[in-house]
Amino acid sequence: MPYFDAASAVPLHPVARQALLASLDEGWADPTRLHREGRRARMLLDAAREAAAEAVGCRPGEIVFTSSGTRAVHTGVAGALAGRRRVGHHLIVSTVEHSSVLHSADSFEVEGGTVDRVPVDRTGAVDPSGYAAALRPDTALACLQSANHEVGTVQPVAEVAAVCRAAGVPLFVDAAQSLGWGPVEGDWSLLAGSAHKWGGPSGVGLLVVRKGVRFAAQGPVDERESGRAAGFENIPAIVAAVASLRAVRIEAAEETVRLRELTARIRAEVPRLVPDVEVVGDAGRRLPGIVTFSCLYVDGEALLHELDREGFSVSSGSSCTSSTLTPSHVLKAMGVLSEGNVRVSLPPGTAEADVARFLQVLPRVVAGVREKLGAPAPAPAPAVTVADDVIAVDALGKRCPVPVIELAKIFGDVPVGGTVRVLSDDEAARLDIPAWCEMRGQEYVGEEPAPRGTAYLVRRVS
Amino acid sequence: MPYFDAASAVPLHPVARQALLASLDEGWADPTRLHREGRRARMLLDAAREAAAEAVGCRPGEIVFTSSGTRAVHTGVAGALAGRRRVGHHLIVSTVEHSSVLHSADSFEVEGGTVDRVPVDRTGAVDPSGYAAALRPDTALACLQSANHEVGTVQPVAEVAAVCRAAGVPLFVDAAQSLGWGPVEGDWSLLAGSAHKWGGPSGVGLLVVRKGVRFAAQGPVDERESGRAAGFENIPAIVAAVASLRAVRIEAAEETVRLRELTARIRAEVPRLVPDVEVVGDAGRRLPGIVTFSCLYVDGEALLHELDREGFSVSSGSSCTSSTLTPSHVLKAMGVLSEGNVRVSLPPGTAEADVARFLQVLPRVVAGVREKLGAPAPAPAPAVTVADDVIAVDALGKRCPVPVIELAKIFGDVPVGGTVRVLSDDEAARLDIPAWCEMRGQEYVGEEPAPRGTAYLVRRVS
Repeated sequence: MPYFDAASAVPLHPVARQALLASLDEGWADPTRLHREGRRARMLLDAAREAAAEAVGCRPGEIVFTSSGTRAVHTGVAGALAGRRRVGHHLIVSTVEHSSVLHSADSFEVEGGTVDRVPVDRTGAVDPSGYAAALRPDTALACLQSANHEVGTVQPVAEVAAVCRAAGVPLFVDAAQSLGWGPVEGDWSLLAGSAHKWGGPSGVGLLVVRKGVRFAAQGPVDERESGRAAGFENIPAIVAAVASLRAVRIEAAEETVRLRELTARIRAEVPRLVPDVEVVGDAGRRLPGIVTFSCLYVDGEALLHELDREGFSVSSGSSCTSSTLTPSHVLKAMGVLSEGNVRVSLPPGTAEADVARFLQVLPRVVAGVREKLGAPAPAPAPAVTVADDVIAVDALGKRCPVPVIELAKIFGDVPVGGTVRVLSDDEAARLDIPAWCEMRGQEYVGEEPAPRGTAYLVRRVS
Repeated sequence: MPYFDAASAVPLHPVARQALLASLDEGWADPTRLHREGRRARMLLDAAREAAAEAVGCRPGEIVFTSSGTRAVHTGVAGALAGRRRVGHHLIVSTVEHSSVLHSADSFEVEGGTVDRVPVDRTGAVDPSGYAAALRPDTALACLQSANHEVGTVQPVAEVAAVCRAAGVPLFVDAAQSLGWGPVEGDWSLLAGSAHKWGGPSGVGLLVVRKGVRFAAQGPVDERESGRAAGFENIPAIVAAVASLRAVRIEAAEETVRLRELTARIRAEVPRLVPDVEVVGDAGRRLPGIVTFSCLYVDGEALLHELDREGFSVSSGSSCTSSTLTPSHVLKAMGVLSEGNVRVSLPPGTAEADVARFLQVLPRVVAGVREKLGAPAPAPAPAVTVADDVIAVDALGKRCPVPVIELAKIFGDVPVGGTVRVLSDDEAARLDIPAWCEMRGQEYVGEEPAPRGTAYLVRRVS
């Protein structure tokens, strides 16, 4: 049963499992104690810290083990902001950061801080000039992910770090998606990682605070982890996490080439096999294992369920798969289609045959979902007359992807020059109607408020 | 090699180990995902939550899994205080709480809150009337441990909860030391526990927030654990923790009787076998496995090392075993001797023969440490004349237990009615010189400032 959701979590690496089992017996005691069980635990912790530092490319004293990647981000961002509170209360993040970074930014705003959110282009990448423009004399911290978790786009971290360094501002890098593939390049100041993304156990995050970076841990602390992460260290899990990081790094060069080829194949084949699909993310600067695409006229949740029935575990950034009924903030920031969104993230070791079967199954599954939803045929019928009437489509109360389906259904009857006014109260429509226009080569005129919901105006140009 | 430091951490329970191994394969995925791996993880998490609720005596929805006991305390105290910030900014704690509670209180004070610290008697117990007296109209929260982690004294939680309930104030109970032995009685509002104290793995804490308790999680949160504990759930460890809690509860009745008898034996035998020893903590209302005593004229760190060489792992609240060079805040609050302090905390299953050997070894070890330090003979020589001279002892720059040893050495030469003035800059002297007076039936006159350090005045009365 192929598991293609590695960007969420991967199963425990065999090396991590072995290390965990061994250190359950050796590493359970309190490493601050003077007795032999405590000293043994301390030795394991020290050795893990050294090995982690080597893998990250930093000093052992710069490593802080936390209880999750999210905790590493929360602790790191809050500590770096507080450490430079005399400089100012301005924070820069990109619009496509992981929710843990964005939640930290929201929390900072609630406390009175100011946040600038640097936009991305249609591939999901930031431009270093965006950071340069956002930097201010009172900027305390800038944050940038090493690579995006939803579309795999690799960010220009080294360039942004250089821009920040020149301004004397520390850069915090969320390296959760990339740390298993290699160290993060560039002159960054703080970094976070998450063990269960690289085959380590849950319950271990990594925070790196470079020497010389001003840092003031927030909230109650204790004597553990240099006063930066309170609570009894989870040594068996830390040992397993570091063992796994070393193991996946050894396999990284070979797996990079192999997975990159498999995702390149999906990138190329899906638009050929499935009509009305948009593959998103950068085709070149991307993580080896992630490929993401969106299918017009498809309900993301139904698609996930159908793929699950066929044995494929994937995830989706469609609004209907989130508890908030809003599309993924990443797809939104990129301005790409969010309906029928599928993220395929291959774990190391994925078999070529599984990818081949996925490509074989996908067209049938998408067609099935579209049929159930009464989606229009792939190619719209040619138009005959020119007119400037406005045709109204009332999609109030209908959820993604229905508003776009209603638009597409009627579009064949719209004369060139004619306008459709789609009334919708679904948040995903704001993203998906413009995206549909882009895919169809039609003009998206804009939106206007309506007594209920919003009206989206589309003009037929061909 | 007998491990007598169960109050710090115990090795993984065999049931926990089994549960951990099984759920490493089943529980690694993201429980918020819709695919089968995610659903399987979610089922494990739900089942663990129900079992934990049953063991605690609460509803499943009231359980929040955190990454450690410390994190449960930090999250619980901060969330409860914020939830009632409209009522006021007053917090009540006891003076003998775990450092995680005291650090939370310190943090609250830094943010502008007011903290009252309820004192304890010489056994380490609070009096419910102390809480009644401390309650104010603006009290947001009161905290009390279920039992003390250093001396084992059980606190009157149900009585204090009733006092708080009558005033409409929630009570937070740190149940880290007792939860493995049974549910916490009384009408408490919030509760925290720590899995590695009951044979679960490190990395799992338990926070219980009773329905109806106002609670506002602080800092950035996410959708996990009802928005009360951010970060990917550590499901294999959670499953193992709950399995272990159930397992130790089944064994609890029998082990309570067995360990209680072993610690009663240590309580009775140590003062008989070792001269100049003070056994501390309540003789009746106490945890089954903990017994703590302090030895005059003994360096706690040396004693720990010698016991370790003999194969016994214990801990100590003496100043010389802490990084801050101050004695344990618990011993200080109780006003008992801190030098040569030993906490014996027996894990379930401790063999009687190990306790017997400990009692056999201890007198020799204590005598050896005393001999190296040049401690005076147990019984001071009788005095001959009456005088009112002041004899000066300069112990500046000497660390615990040397100032008390210097006092005791000279005391035989002090006439009845005479006064000794011990000059010391060691923080432990403030606790240990009065404690020595109490043990010897001599009068502690008081302290006075000196150009360097502090002068402690002792009058010979017999």
